[in-house]
Amino acid sequence: MTTDPTATHTQIPRRGLLLVLSSPSGAGKSTLSRRLLQRDNNIAMSISTTTRPPRPAEKNGVDYNFVTIEDFKKMLDENAFLEYAKVFDNYYGTPQAPVEEALSQGKDVLFDIDWQGTQQLAQKAGGDLVRIFILPPSTEELERRLYSRAQDSADIVQKRMSKAAQEISHWPEYDYIIVNDDLDHSDAQLNAILQAERLKRDRQTGLLKFVSNLVDPDDN
Amino acid sequence: MTTDPTATHTQIPRRGLLLVLSSPSGAGKSTLSRRLLQRDNNIAMSISTTTRPPRPAEKNGVDYNFVTIEDFKKMLDENAFLEYAKVFDNYYGTPQAPVEEALSQGKDVLFDIDWQGTQQLAQKAGGDLVRIFILPPSTEELERRLYSRAQDSADIVQKRMSKAAQEISHWPEYDYIIVNDDLDHSDAQLNAILQAERLKRDRQTGLLKFVSNLVDPDDN
Repeated sequence: MTTDPTATHTQIPRRGLLLVLSSPSGAGKSTLSRRLLQRDNNIAMSISTTTRPPRPAEKNGVDYNFVTIEDFKKMLDENAFLEYAKVFDNYYGTPQAPVEEALSQGKDVLFDIDWQGTQQLAQKAGGDLVRIFILPPSTEELERRLYSRAQDSADIVQKRMSKAAQEISHWPEYDYIIVNDDLDHSDAQLNAILQAERLKRDRQTGLLKFVSNLVDPDDN
Repeated sequence: MTTDPTATHTQIPRRGLLLVLSSPSGAGKSTLSRRLLQRDNNIAMSISTTTRPPRPAEKNGVDYNFVTIEDFKKMLDENAFLEYAKVFDNYYGTPQAPVEEALSQGKDVLFDIDWQGTQQLAQKAGGDLVRIFILPPSTEELERRLYSRAQDSADIVQKRMSKAAQEISHWPEYDYIIVNDDLDHSDAQLNAILQAERLKRDRQTGLLKFVSNLVDPDDN
């Protein structure tokens, strides 16, 4: 098992990061996200705010923050979202305040969003953002995964392929690319990216103080 | 054991990278370099060119490329070095041609150089460069490691501490910082950085072709 490398060693205070996972439908993103959240206790899924009504099993503040359209529009006016979208008649958005609080405490936040949300996030998050795109290993595998969902008409499958191709076309906007031909392998790659990004100099905000103590302990 | 994640999976052709490890004397850099080279068969140590005479056990082309001062100066005139230095009466340099060849074949090259060499390398290598600085965990540990070398005079130890402090002062010029309080842990962090850097979009030079085949297999 890979353990959190910061757990029992020298802890340099650091700023958290925003980890974005994007992929076409069926590339394994949800499974990889779930594994990541289970393994690593210093990263949490971003909770979106939405105007759509909760489904029976959904809990407010856990699955979504459920708000009225009026509240959502007020937050929009206050520039309170890192990114948002309107899907049919419902609004979905990522409120900035809880994300900023997590980052300043050295906690990382995971986003399962598409290229449009990622573009918006990039505008506001700058260097805090780490963007990973997950590709399927082959056309055959992509088709197999899109077909296997249900007994869909050829028309619907064609629409999905077209949507997948459109999503995939945005791969150059991401920092890292993982080809998911094996879940364990991709999982390890995802973990390596997260561990490495945490070691970046400019995220380790406590380094200046640490080094001062190191070379000049009497001054402190 | 961590295996090479590119070994048995989808191989996207990529450009190699230059991995620089710098640290003050006694921070564990040599041990970490040796472990990395033993574990990973896609990275090799850069072989320096030098004008100093070979020692009995040293082999030309393995430990160093041994050349005359005239040859070295001719290479200098031809701008053939990525970085070089004169130490006492001897020249040491990293020839550019073999490094460029390795990179274009997707092979990575490891450098065990100080901040001065790193600054020169950065001028020529740009985005191919990945700079890691290794810090000792504490002043006590740094002193212990510097003292333990031999029965040195207080004067010599003081000089070493001063040199270490000077080297450490260049940590802000590096991309990643590892605090080496545990060799296995630092080894894993080093490996995570290398694996992550290999997954960066702009190093995976075969992605455009891979994605074209993915979304439009009949066109290819």
